[in-house]
Amino acid sequence: MNRDRINGDPLDGFRFPIDEWRLVETSPAFDDLGVTETLFAVGNGYLGMRGTPEEGRDSHLVGTFVNGFHETWEIKHAENAFGFARVGQTMVNVPSSTLIKLYVDDEPLLVSVADLVSYERSLDFRDGVLHRDLIWRTPAGKRVRVRSRRMVSFTDRHLSVMTFEVTLLEGSAPVVISSQIVNKQDFDEIAGVGAAGDPRRNRNFDHRVLIGEMNWCSPRRMVLGYRTANSGMTLAVGADHVMDTVNQFEELDDTSADQGRKIYRVQAEEGVPITITKAVAYHTSRGIPVRELSDRVRRTLDRVRDQGVEQCFVAQREWMDAFWTRSDVEIGSSVRDQQAIRWCLFQLIQASARADGMGIPAKGLTGDGYEGHYFWDTEVYLIPFLTLTDPTLARNALRYRYTHLDLARARAREMAVRGALFPWRTINGQEASAYYAAGTAQYHIDADIAYAIGHYGAMTRDVEFMVHEGAEMLVETARMWADLGFWRFNGEKVFEIHGVTGPDEYTTVVNNNTYTNVMARWNLRLAAMWLRRMAAEYPEDLGLLVRRVGLDMGEVDEWEQCAEGMEIPFDAELGIHPQDDDFLNKELWDLDATPGDRFPLLLNYHPLVIYRFQVLKQADVVLAEFLRPGEFDPATKRADFEYYDPITTGDSSLSAVMQAIMAAEVGHQDMALGYFRSGLYTDLADTHMNAGDGAHIASTAGIWRCLVSGFAGLRDDGELSFDPRLPTEWTHLEFPLSYRGSRVRVHLSAEAIRFTLEVGDPITVDVRGVEVKIGDTPVEVPLDGQGPLLPLLVGSRPFVHGEPMV
Amino acid sequence: MNRDRINGDPLDGFRFPIDEWRLVETSPAFDDLGVTETLFAVGNGYLGMRGTPEEGRDSHLVGTFVNGFHETWEIKHAENAFGFARVGQTMVNVPSSTLIKLYVDDEPLLVSVADLVSYERSLDFRDGVLHRDLIWRTPAGKRVRVRSRRMVSFTDRHLSVMTFEVTLLEGSAPVVISSQIVNKQDFDEIAGVGAAGDPRRNRNFDHRVLIGEMNWCSPRRMVLGYRTANSGMTLAVGADHVMDTVNQFEELDDTSADQGRKIYRVQAEEGVPITITKAVAYHTSRGIPVRELSDRVRRTLDRVRDQGVEQCFVAQREWMDAFWTRSDVEIGSSVRDQQAIRWCLFQLIQASARADGMGIPAKGLTGDGYEGHYFWDTEVYLIPFLTLTDPTLARNALRYRYTHLDLARARAREMAVRGALFPWRTINGQEASAYYAAGTAQYHIDADIAYAIGHYGAMTRDVEFMVHEGAEMLVETARMWADLGFWRFNGEKVFEIHGVTGPDEYTTVVNNNTYTNVMARWNLRLAAMWLRRMAAEYPEDLGLLVRRVGLDMGEVDEWEQCAEGMEIPFDAELGIHPQDDDFLNKELWDLDATPGDRFPLLLNYHPLVIYRFQVLKQADVVLAEFLRPGEFDPATKRADFEYYDPITTGDSSLSAVMQAIMAAEVGHQDMALGYFRSGLYTDLADTHMNAGDGAHIASTAGIWRCLVSGFAGLRDDGELSFDPRLPTEWTHLEFPLSYRGSRVRVHLSAEAIRFTLEVGDPITVDVRGVEVKIGDTPVEVPLDGQGPLLPLLVGSRPFVHGEPMV
Repeated sequence: MNRDRINGDPLDGFRFPIDEWRLVETSPAFDDLGVTETLFAVGNGYLGMRGTPEEGRDSHLVGTFVNGFHETWEIKHAENAFGFARVGQTMVNVPSSTLIKLYVDDEPLLVSVADLVSYERSLDFRDGVLHRDLIWRTPAGKRVRVRSRRMVSFTDRHLSVMTFEVTLLEGSAPVVISSQIVNKQDFDEIAGVGAAGDPRRNRNFDHRVLIGEMNWCSPRRMVLGYRTANSGMTLAVGADHVMDTVNQFEELDDTSADQGRKIYRVQAEEGVPITITKAVAYHTSRGIPVRELSDRVRRTLDRVRDQGVEQCFVAQREWMDAFWTRSDVEIGSSVRDQQAIRWCLFQLIQASARADGMGIPAKGLTGDGYEGHYFWDTEVYLIPFLTLTDPTLARNALRYRYTHLDLARARAREMAVRGALFPWRTINGQEASAYYAAGTAQYHIDADIAYAIGHYGAMTRDVEFMVHEGAEMLVETARMWADLGFWRFNGEKVFEIHGVTGPDEYTTVVNNNTYTNVMARWNLRLAAMWLRRMAAEYPEDLGLLVRRVGLDMGEVDEWEQCAEGMEIPFDAELGIHPQDDDFLNKELWDLDATPGDRFPLLLNYHPLVIYRFQVLKQADVVLAEFLRPGEFDPATKRADFEYYDPITTGDSSLSAVMQAIMAAEVGHQDMALGYFRSGLYTDLADTHMNAGDGAHIASTAGIWRCLVSGFAGLRDDGELSFDPRLPTEWTHLEFPLSYRGSRVRVHLSAEAIRFTLEVGDPITVDVRGVEVKIGDTPVEVPLDGQGPLLPLLVGSRPFVHGEPMV
Repeated sequence: MNRDRINGDPLDGFRFPIDEWRLVETSPAFDDLGVTETLFAVGNGYLGMRGTPEEGRDSHLVGTFVNGFHETWEIKHAENAFGFARVGQTMVNVPSSTLIKLYVDDEPLLVSVADLVSYERSLDFRDGVLHRDLIWRTPAGKRVRVRSRRMVSFTDRHLSVMTFEVTLLEGSAPVVISSQIVNKQDFDEIAGVGAAGDPRRNRNFDHRVLIGEMNWCSPRRMVLGYRTANSGMTLAVGADHVMDTVNQFEELDDTSADQGRKIYRVQAEEGVPITITKAVAYHTSRGIPVRELSDRVRRTLDRVRDQGVEQCFVAQREWMDAFWTRSDVEIGSSVRDQQAIRWCLFQLIQASARADGMGIPAKGLTGDGYEGHYFWDTEVYLIPFLTLTDPTLARNALRYRYTHLDLARARAREMAVRGALFPWRTINGQEASAYYAAGTAQYHIDADIAYAIGHYGAMTRDVEFMVHEGAEMLVETARMWADLGFWRFNGEKVFEIHGVTGPDEYTTVVNNNTYTNVMARWNLRLAAMWLRRMAAEYPEDLGLLVRRVGLDMGEVDEWEQCAEGMEIPFDAELGIHPQDDDFLNKELWDLDATPGDRFPLLLNYHPLVIYRFQVLKQADVVLAEFLRPGEFDPATKRADFEYYDPITTGDSSLSAVMQAIMAAEVGHQDMALGYFRSGLYTDLADTHMNAGDGAHIASTAGIWRCLVSGFAGLRDDGELSFDPRLPTEWTHLEFPLSYRGSRVRVHLSAEAIRFTLEVGDPITVDVRGVEVKIGDTPVEVPLDGQGPLLPLLVGSRPFVHGEPMV
């Protein structure tokens, strides 16, 4: 059920005017500081800065994050048991460099109390630059224009560039500008942020995390260096300041362990601008001495010094132009929705562009929710977007898992299974989930990773990756499933998987979770198919692999047998797939009788209460049917959707987008659009009331999926096929797809779907069963002028179990 | 399966000679200090002292415990959720008063290094006095006799009495005796004791628990007073010392916050005894000022001063004589086994005699295992023993639950059910189980309490208790079940209970756990039966109850319907009761292939691994069939036993005794005796390798059950009936039973069972279907001279569903 239905314009149009390429705020507010800090955050996947104003106040959480830079701590279980996660990992809020305080006539600019003549803050999706432009009437009555820019570079992942410009519009006055780097542990605002009963929020440390090891400054440059207390990671942050003004000024510099300051005292004259540029570099490592990182900081800053900061803005724009060429989705509909779509797409690239060898945190680098951990949604929601828009980034993200394969092997041994078991949540590769029922029990993480590998391999034909890292991960995950499950004689011999939790965490530790079994089957098949293919086509690579993992080809036979015998729960009477063996035996939760303030259920009922009812956080059977489209017939998909949707709370932000896609597929067009818009505004309208903790990155990826797979009807299970369901309210939908080295632009209208090859060799796609070759000239396939197809009739076409291609 | 099979004499007969009324140690050892501290502990259910030697060293844990005296602490969940237990409760190791250090020629007596000419330590079950008698050859070559006694009084629960006698057997020497009260937080030995991965062990605190509020001394007396840091409980401990010697001596006294000392410096002459008596009183409260407790300490000590300590020993012996008259069990078999039986029975009375209004901790007061918490085993294992030997103690223990009924009501609301939900583990009435799957999910605690109430009511006819406290608890627990379960249409309409854990914690959070459903049904029936009976016989009491709990008599109809419709899983093909709906679908754990060092499984496998297999910690279906004997036919009981026994690890100390009873019932006489002896030596032979944490009180109660219900075949479901199964190795078995105000002595031999009425009015019992009236003269019922009955043939007699009497 769609509790978050968005009616009309979900944003205050006065405060946030519609702009298809920017998020714009025309008046400040202070009751949603956490949310706007998230919405206006800038980052590049390595470095992220929340949208706190330059003054540092008012703020909810002044946050700067470096992907993977974390502190460890001993997880103390109130009641411990064998194999419980031991090493907590929490992304560290690193020293902030966004602080630039302004004083005119010794009065500080503080937006919440300032007399503002004008105000505009905007985040431009075209270049990823955050702007603020305001005119402040000081207590002395002088108008002062303050303009600033802030960006985190996509081309140089260690770099952030800020500019700060002050002009007295009347009179003269002493102006002081204090630009700082501050170790957050001095911020009062931090004290209030803590777990406090919500497992999705970050935690406070009980110790000082960042230990200062270096600080120095020169007139142009300051550098601070730190080491984390437990994890021993190191960080250096440095800043260069350049002052440009014809006013007279003096400057002061100082640094201490927790602060570096650059202070300009300016005798400002009317109309004479004061412009400061601040280039900041962050370098981090797992333990390299701070001194060496400091050298790297210098090199980054020297490069900026040599080329000038404006060149950084130019390069940023060029990089972003290329991104939008590869990734933009244009809809012929509400400009507000278009704006929100681009905000979502911008989040995706901010979260992933320069993650390089690291994973992609659930909140990207926009907040500290989920402690900066990497989860399954990277593989199921995010990587497919990267695979189909910028495969290099997908490869990087998959390689991150490969770097932790040995830890996953060790975890499998601890969990008494063969192969490799990836952690449910982690930064450093070790299991960090302190609640196994909704953590370690989600063995499906292995199959999710295998899914992303298989999808990547099929969409890119990156054989070099597949026969090496890809195949090795497929082998070890397949081994895990073959050992975790067992053969049961139940009339016939079936392969069952017990004691697992699916993505729907409102039911845990069950037998034969349909999602898990479907995805495990695919994992087993993928592993077997790739190994058979390697035997035929890449025997030398297979030889290497066999030696590396001690493989006996008899295992491949076993995987095929396990896949073939896999139990997939089905209730013949209802014609649906039960979520697990027991699901249909449970009592139904009466959602209509549940007061609105008791959602999300997980914060208002003991897990034992939730678990014993038929009630869902997200519909994982429905998700499985999206991910493995050829394995289910249309009638069952529809029946499943219609069974689960009414009992799905959508308490997970991963829910709405998948419900949208499958609503579209099974013929509920209104629901599809409704769910789509719920997902679209998850953060922008803060419908889950926790956007302050960071953006819901998987949901933003789901928005892209809604567009290309929900409305354009793309299925990408080996090949590309389209069965469009354009909403009647929309004139068109257009987006590019990267596929096997080519890029094709798809334009969908009610009347036709048009394909234009933009890059690479001709490709072939399928449109409603018709093969379409796309070469040098655009191809248009008429859709019979009938608009979106009528809902597929239940059972109207025979179910073909297509052996999926890889 | 019986992994702990005891062959031959499980004790080292040289070190622990056989003695049917005492536990005797003839040579000290230092590799099992924790175990012997437990085995030689003395206590009375209010106050307990571990059997540490007077010198305080060598020791595993110097421990003195006061039942219910606990510190609270915030349970910090590594990942929190709604309704998780918040208040940790840990029994405090209170200041020890057993320390009496001896120096001769300034050389300390330390048993582990002393040159001992002779040594004997013994715990006498007839009077509950711990003795030590040794001759020490000092480094100077002088022989010194040291004799001591220690007891905790049953007649005055606040009192402990010790004597310490030193005699130089040759020469003269300066002798120093330092008698102390020491707050344990000064003991180095404590530092090493901690949870360390085993949830059954105690925990270290991270703060100073006992804050000294008072300390003073006079030549005769010292008193120390404390308050706990968080829970605010108060304690005063005082000691009187009396010196009796004709040697010259001087004495010193001092006290500080953590120590009180009485030091005698004696010019000891050869053959002239030095005798010190030390009377110690402990008074505690939930918060009364220490000053007032100090006055109570004085009163206790004054009383001892007036009557003399020897009178305390006399009173103790009289009290214990009465206990053995009510409770002894004599077997015509191995004296070693007889000795072990009496040790077990002594543990039972030590744990419960003066608990008065408190619960009975899982380890009694012999150790800090399980943190001094009260669990379900009190009701299922221990209280029935009290009910049938000393009903007043049973009533006290049941009233303890009643005092926490309001807290149980509040917990029910938090857990979204009506009525009352008692905590799985607690001291102060709040849920303290930090792991819900094996804690809060054990809703059966409610039915266990109801069972003990029903059993107590039927065995005692204590109507006054039943119509007041008893009925009120029955109502609130029945309400809980009626709300927790739900009606499901599964062909027919059945009442199901989902998402619970039964006593077998190797499978958790399941649907329709057979034990739970059987016991919940009985809970519902008991409540309905008692209310119907009150309506007929005690309408005024019913009226009061109805007003107190807001009862609608329509609820009683509902309980009867729920009981009638209760789902009891049954597998027709195997002819057994599955442990729960899914149990038979699981993979079988291969116990034969599991290395011995990986038991208990809970310490060597992740819960998720254990939970997905058919493997048991204890067989709860078998337990249910013992507790509700009339509800199962013999063939099914045998089939269940034979199905579950091979997959039961017995990792729980509650397992062996129940397997013994039911093995006897279903005809596996050898197994019965084997399991009985496993249970008998659980602590004495430390078969579970944790006797150092305290005695397994429920297991000792189970030993009594094995004797009266396993071998004498007593079933006490409303009336008493006997179907004996005397082991062929035994000549006889004799024990008393208290029943409805009378006491009858039962003597069983292979040829006959004889009943002698010792106290009260004539009673009627059933022997193998024959009604036997027991009046003023003994009655002997021949057993056809055939020894134990052959195993009951499967299905040999028709199953009659006897509506149990109350």
